[in-house]
Amino acid sequence: MTGFFRDIAPVTYEGADSDNPLAFRHYDPDELVMGRRMEDHLRFAVAYWHSFAWEGGDPFGGPTFQRPWYPQDDMARARDKADAAFEMFDILGQPFFCWHDADIRPEGATFAESLRNLEEITDYFAQKMEGRKVRLLWGTANMFSHRRFMAGAATNPDPDVFAWAAATVKTCMDATQKLGGQNYVLWGGREGYETLLNTDLGRELDHMGRFLSMVVDYKHKIGFEGAILVEPKPQEPSKHQYDFDVATCIGFLRKYGLENEVRLNIEQGHAILAGHSFEHELALAAAEGMLGSIDMNRNDYQSGWDTDQFPNTVPEVALAYYHVLKSGGFTTGGTNFDARLRRQSLDAQDLIAAHVGAMDVCARGLKSAAAMIGDGGLEAALADRYAGWDNPQAQAMLTSDLDTIFDRVCSGEIDPQPRSGRQEMLENYVNQFV
Amino acid sequence: MTGFFRDIAPVTYEGADSDNPLAFRHYDPDELVMGRRMEDHLRFAVAYWHSFAWEGGDPFGGPTFQRPWYPQDDMARARDKADAAFEMFDILGQPFFCWHDADIRPEGATFAESLRNLEEITDYFAQKMEGRKVRLLWGTANMFSHRRFMAGAATNPDPDVFAWAAATVKTCMDATQKLGGQNYVLWGGREGYETLLNTDLGRELDHMGRFLSMVVDYKHKIGFEGAILVEPKPQEPSKHQYDFDVATCIGFLRKYGLENEVRLNIEQGHAILAGHSFEHELALAAAEGMLGSIDMNRNDYQSGWDTDQFPNTVPEVALAYYHVLKSGGFTTGGTNFDARLRRQSLDAQDLIAAHVGAMDVCARGLKSAAAMIGDGGLEAALADRYAGWDNPQAQAMLTSDLDTIFDRVCSGEIDPQPRSGRQEMLENYVNQFV
Amino acid sequence: MTGFFRDIAPVTYEGADSDNPLAFRHYDPDELVMGRRMEDHLRFAVAYWHSFAWEGGDPFGGPTFQRPWYPQDDMARARDKADAAFEMFDILGQPFFCWHDADIRPEGATFAESLRNLEEITDYFAQKMEGRKVRLLWGTANMFSHRRFMAGAATNPDPDVFAWAAATVKTCMDATQKLGGQNYVLWGGREGYETLLNTDLGRELDHMGRFLSMVVDYKHKIGFEGAILVEPKPQEPSKHQYDFDVATCIGFLRKYGLENEVRLNIEQGHAILAGHSFEHELALAAAEGMLGSIDMNRNDYQSGWDTDQFPNTVPEVALAYYHVLKSGGFTTGGTNFDARLRRQSLDAQDLIAAHVGAMDVCARGLKSAAAMIGDGGLEAALADRYAGWDNPQAQAMLTSDLDTIFDRVCSGEIDPQPRSGRQEMLENYVNQFV
Amino acid sequence: MTGFFRDIAPVTYEGADSDNPLAFRHYDPDELVMGRRMEDHLRFAVAYWHSFAWEGGDPFGGPTFQRPWYPQDDMARARDKADAAFEMFDILGQPFFCWHDADIRPEGATFAESLRNLEEITDYFAQKMEGRKVRLLWGTANMFSHRRFMAGAATNPDPDVFAWAAATVKTCMDATQKLGGQNYVLWGGREGYETLLNTDLGRELDHMGRFLSMVVDYKHKIGFEGAILVEPKPQEPSKHQYDFDVATCIGFLRKYGLENEVRLNIEQGHAILAGHSFEHELALAAAEGMLGSIDMNRNDYQSGWDTDQFPNTVPEVALAYYHVLKSGGFTTGGTNFDARLRRQSLDAQDLIAAHVGAMDVCARGLKSAAAMIGDGGLEAALADRYAGWDNPQAQAMLTSDLDTIFDRVCSGEIDPQPRSGRQEMLENYVNQFV
Repeated sequence: MTGFFRDIAPVTYEGADSDNPLAFRHYDPDELVMGRRMEDHLRFAVAYWHSFAWEGGDPFGGPTFQRPWYPQDDMARARDKADAAFEMFDILGQPFFCWHDADIRPEGATFAESLRNLEEITDYFAQKMEGRKVRLLWGTANMFSHRRFMAGAATNPDPDVFAWAAATVKTCMDATQKLGGQNYVLWGGREGYETLLNTDLGRELDHMGRFLSMVVDYKHKIGFEGAILVEPKPQEPSKHQYDFDVATCIGFLRKYGLENEVRLNIEQGHAILAGHSFEHELALAAAEGMLGSIDMNRNDYQSGWDTDQFPNTVPEVALAYYHVLKSGGFTTGGTNFDARLRRQSLDAQDLIAAHVGAMDVCARGLKSAAAMIGDGGLEAALADRYAGWDNPQAQAMLTSDLDTIFDRVCSGEIDPQPRSGRQEMLENYVNQFV
Repeated sequence: MTGFFRDIAPVTYEGADSDNPLAFRHYDPDELVMGRRMEDHLRFAVAYWHSFAWEGGDPFGGPTFQRPWYPQDDMARARDKADAAFEMFDILGQPFFCWHDADIRPEGATFAESLRNLEEITDYFAQKMEGRKVRLLWGTANMFSHRRFMAGAATNPDPDVFAWAAATVKTCMDATQKLGGQNYVLWGGREGYETLLNTDLGRELDHMGRFLSMVVDYKHKIGFEGAILVEPKPQEPSKHQYDFDVATCIGFLRKYGLENEVRLNIEQGHAILAGHSFEHELALAAAEGMLGSIDMNRNDYQSGWDTDQFPNTVPEVALAYYHVLKSGGFTTGGTNFDARLRRQSLDAQDLIAAHVGAMDVCARGLKSAAAMIGDGGLEAALADRYAGWDNPQAQAMLTSDLDTIFDRVCSGEIDPQPRSGRQEMLENYVNQFV
Repeated sequence: MTGFFRDIAPVTYEGADSDNPLAFRHYDPDELVMGRRMEDHLRFAVAYWHSFAWEGGDPFGGPTFQRPWYPQDDMARARDKADAAFEMFDILGQPFFCWHDADIRPEGATFAESLRNLEEITDYFAQKMEGRKVRLLWGTANMFSHRRFMAGAATNPDPDVFAWAAATVKTCMDATQKLGGQNYVLWGGREGYETLLNTDLGRELDHMGRFLSMVVDYKHKIGFEGAILVEPKPQEPSKHQYDFDVATCIGFLRKYGLENEVRLNIEQGHAILAGHSFEHELALAAAEGMLGSIDMNRNDYQSGWDTDQFPNTVPEVALAYYHVLKSGGFTTGGTNFDARLRRQSLDAQDLIAAHVGAMDVCARGLKSAAAMIGDGGLEAALADRYAGWDNPQAQAMLTSDLDTIFDRVCSGEIDPQPRSGRQEMLENYVNQFV
Repeated sequence: MTGFFRDIAPVTYEGADSDNPLAFRHYDPDELVMGRRMEDHLRFAVAYWHSFAWEGGDPFGGPTFQRPWYPQDDMARARDKADAAFEMFDILGQPFFCWHDADIRPEGATFAESLRNLEEITDYFAQKMEGRKVRLLWGTANMFSHRRFMAGAATNPDPDVFAWAAATVKTCMDATQKLGGQNYVLWGGREGYETLLNTDLGRELDHMGRFLSMVVDYKHKIGFEGAILVEPKPQEPSKHQYDFDVATCIGFLRKYGLENEVRLNIEQGHAILAGHSFEHELALAAAEGMLGSIDMNRNDYQSGWDTDQFPNTVPEVALAYYHVLKSGGFTTGGTNFDARLRRQSLDAQDLIAAHVGAMDVCARGLKSAAAMIGDGGLEAALADRYAGWDNPQAQAMLTSDLDTIFDRVCSGEIDPQPRSGRQEMLENYVNQFV
């Protein structure tokens, strides 16, 4: 026991009337929703970085948190951190966690030492996972924090950095596989640019395409059965990131022939920064068959940067899960809380309460989404709105040509009349369920 | 003579010291830049809609302009409008213009009547173009203003609207070809959605793919030698537009197998609304070989909507033309002023002066861009920054695999050291030329 | 009967389990909330402009609606419009409505004719209000749509426009008083600028200050007992509006000595455009004692312009009413739906359903807010967080000076220790109520 | 000599044709502009924090710079840092610099130790300033980086933090006066909130008002002859900052009776974040007589956070100086480069070149602004546009009342006719000078 969470008992479901801030009011893992246990639907994961590695700093201020495992620069304290993490997993009972290499092991003086550190700590994880239900949702390599990656990893102008990145990903994929990880994620925070003036965009995109192809090849070589996921974000830290949004990523994958090999890990905050809604990004990925997993959080609409807050708005979360459920629900993916405490939230109970509140919000969202699907009102409205296309003549038109259609229109036989889109009524309908 | 421009003489080049507000201070059509006449580089076009069809209204106010050709609902005044337009072309001497069908002809009571109106007015144009140098840069169909298109054209839930749109595009392509147009453009202002709740995203994208394929087929059928261009915009009027930005459009074209048939018409204001810089969108399109033409204007960075102002910032325009020139310059494309007067700029001289100022800004931008290319400083800096990749070992790595690279890194032979990206020095360099 | 709403019966409260789209599920006018009838708390008003005068156009498209009272250019159809409006008031049963002069009467050829039209239609209103409970929440003058106001009303460079505006406001205040209006509102959509290059900012602000002082004087002269309200908005239609946000308006009022005479009408969408949350604007106005009334709507966080949608997010609305209730609730003010249908929502039932859904959302928000106030958790947390300031030594410090405080700090007696701000726990607390 | 700038000679003016990246091409300190030396107009200052204390980290990555004076935690290296700073001042020859206490001295274990460190290092500064021309433009206290300030300084819920802040400001004002500083600045980066849920807005504003009053009192007590300046910023690091923008600050000062005691330090980047242009903020402050000094930098319009880049766009800078010059030019204020290198710009020469480029951009801007003032075109256009107000009848109207004006309008004697606002022509006019 690290003592960090010493006064906090495992969180249990107490029902909606509970006012215990450290109890679930809506998340009951065993409750069946559309015939599946809520835990198996939501597949919650705790993010190691925000919960254990982030120290509370921001661009205008230093750390605010004080944790027993700081400073995070030696292996003994890395184990202390792991002990605290698994204590939190025991308290929350969530089925998954996620990490970057840099969250869990100190950087070594050499590549080899960093690798040894990674192997040691993941062995320690493996040992702690025995006898616990918690599993690894995904692993990933942090290729954006160290100064060597300041100008990119796979897209660095220096081929030695490309090499370092490739070798790093190999070690992280190995570690992910060792721990039974269900996915491997790549987020290209520095794959982009600060200024076009010093950037060869076309060359960098080609390098990124090659890099990802090697990752896919390596997956097959080692028999990793999880999914490879890339994570869209438009900017920050880079001025422009190549994986801008879902549409951009899908276009990139198609260009490099990877559309059947790679899926997407979609984050609410990143969707907002790209000028989209979360449900847009999910719906688009689902329509393309590329919805892999989600990073659930919340972005402050007033702030122009990624605020990574815990989700707290049920109506938004419900629409997100509506698209997840419509696409068949998660397979290898899950709901990773890519969310961090506000830097004034100093205490262990803040960390637990933040997750409890977020899990409850997601549970409410999931149940609302399932109720809408069960009721079928939105699907029925869609079917009605597009009903004209079920007509064989309409379908035939899609394989026709402009002249043929022109003749028909010119003859005067059609005169399309607008029909109400019913937006407000559909919004009211959704409000019956959230 | 309509009399509208009666007191305004043809605009001539008077040199940088002129303070005549209706003279060119920088745009000298015959001046050679990189061995090509400035007119042939810039290929300026006047946009019919902003200059002649827009009446000065905004969401909070009605028309402010009072033109002799209002109201725009009969053919006689459509001819008056054309007379005024060609008088302005004579005054400015720009080599091109562009139109939507709805700009140039009144809507008829039936499709057939609208078509007759279009044919009549384009015949009238053809007659006016004889003996003048002005040519058609591109034509397009307005499929966003009439209420029948309120829920989309190619992506409308009603197949009859799809039909109407297809027939309309045929007529506009025919008219464009008749007038010797060098491109045909599609901007999908309503191809998107207001709410996902009533939208079948995947189905609509497939319809849009089919529609565009038919357009390409028809181009080949009629032997139209110009380019087919689509124009990205992220939103407005729709909450989300499918042609969000350059990357999204390219991904769409690739999905539907149209990447060798269609290029892009890129607008400054739309780039800004999508969270990009204009030069980003140009550079990306150029890197993919899909840079077709530009809609030159300026978006107010403070306003969250498309302000379509005339360009007035030379440093920005210079970076845009830098990418145009680097990609080889325009072929069928050109510089269309998709810009409108502010609604308080009521007079004929405002309209002329706005174009004169914009043409001068572009001329300065072009000359600055050419000077940078001539000096070669940016290219040299790029070559130096990526020089490591010229190494055969680096190139070999790109066709290698993660294990091989890992072995090399693990051996300790590389230890990448960051090098300065020199952003400020490159920005200072650019400032020598603008 | 106009027939426009012919198939729609008066809307009644049916309870949360109803799935009748034209019934209230949460708004029960007579239900007591904190000892006051819900109707008297919320004081709903229908906005004449959006519901009856707006035709569905946007910057890229013409009207989509087709109403029996179009075109809106003669007095007979103005009366038809009024008939329809009062029919809707009968259906909804909301206690108030609001108007601009331009919404209710056609513009005349002269000022005198416009005035006659206004007098006639407001006499007609007065007659219709007899025997109905519906009252006027506020009247206002539209001094932004007609081209004469394109460069401002009170801040126009032309003193004749100032005069026209002053005379117009007089007539609208008279009409508001005649109808028993409870407030008079000024929204300065064109009181601002398009470019600083042609604007004398200081002079315009002084003119605006004088204008508002005359309005206040006139209120006293005619014995109008309602409140004078100004309405903040940062931009749109103007590039910059002088009444940017609540803080700016309060500063302006204080500068011109009007802080005890004028209060604020605060709109959700305008708060968002100014980079604030709605609750921020309300809390600030309340802290200054200047919270007058609200324009309830919703702005799309993705769109950079004012979308004026009907509210549909209970958690946001609850926080708004929390601040309204904390400040003592509305006196002369109320909840005006400054919201319009989406332009694809063509039908009478869309208009009714939009209001019904919005009223329900507000009712849920109000009840949530009242529950939070009843529970007292937020107030208790505030009291605890600031408890140190209740200490007399702390209070004394506020009237002390830097030297005295310095001596105390320098002596080493204090060493402030951060305490958790508990943001997530407070957010979770709110989620118990929404 | 620290050796950090060892290969870099003092920067001299070489004229516009120079391509020496470390020479001034436009900034010639002794050149007369409107009868005043350019150096005395621009009054450039180097910001100690960005140039010497910032290590290149961002929210996603650690330090990238490697300076001989790191780590910045002891007094010996604080002196090394000072040596390097003054070496850079010798190279650039700029007349001023600025600091926060935290930039120049290590934090001590106690308040008293921090104070001793501050006194020692400012004594060291005083010694280095002897025999050099460089002077202190302003000093300020960093009350946002240390965790004790995480919830505010003057607005902290804990009165002990208020005390600590008051004592800190006293020491920084003393140090500023000792060094002959010409202004004292307060920037309230944490004077605001992260969530309204835990914030008593009214109470915090009152505390901030009291705090600032004490600062003003102390200024008079010690006979400090410089100006007290506050610096607006809307958000970041806080979600909302009380000093949101110029209008908000002025309203605040007026509320607390400080409008004659305090002026504003206005930053380009902060203006952008608040939804304004830089020139708007300057013009407004000038109109209120509260323009004190400027923080010159540039914000990336694409990024939603404060990018603090060196200015590089002459047209924007020219409009800023136009308002500075129109208001009479700087008195105690100046042009502080609140700008930092991009984190990939690792080298000493990057730091010098960034300042050289920025100084040249400002010199060009200043000369352009002076030329516009000399030419008088903008002033003449303004005078013409508002000429109607010079009419005695118009002036009389301003002290009239609504009835009187109504009678005149009703009589039909006026019928205001819109006149062109000439925006494009004025923009073209400006382009003659930039």
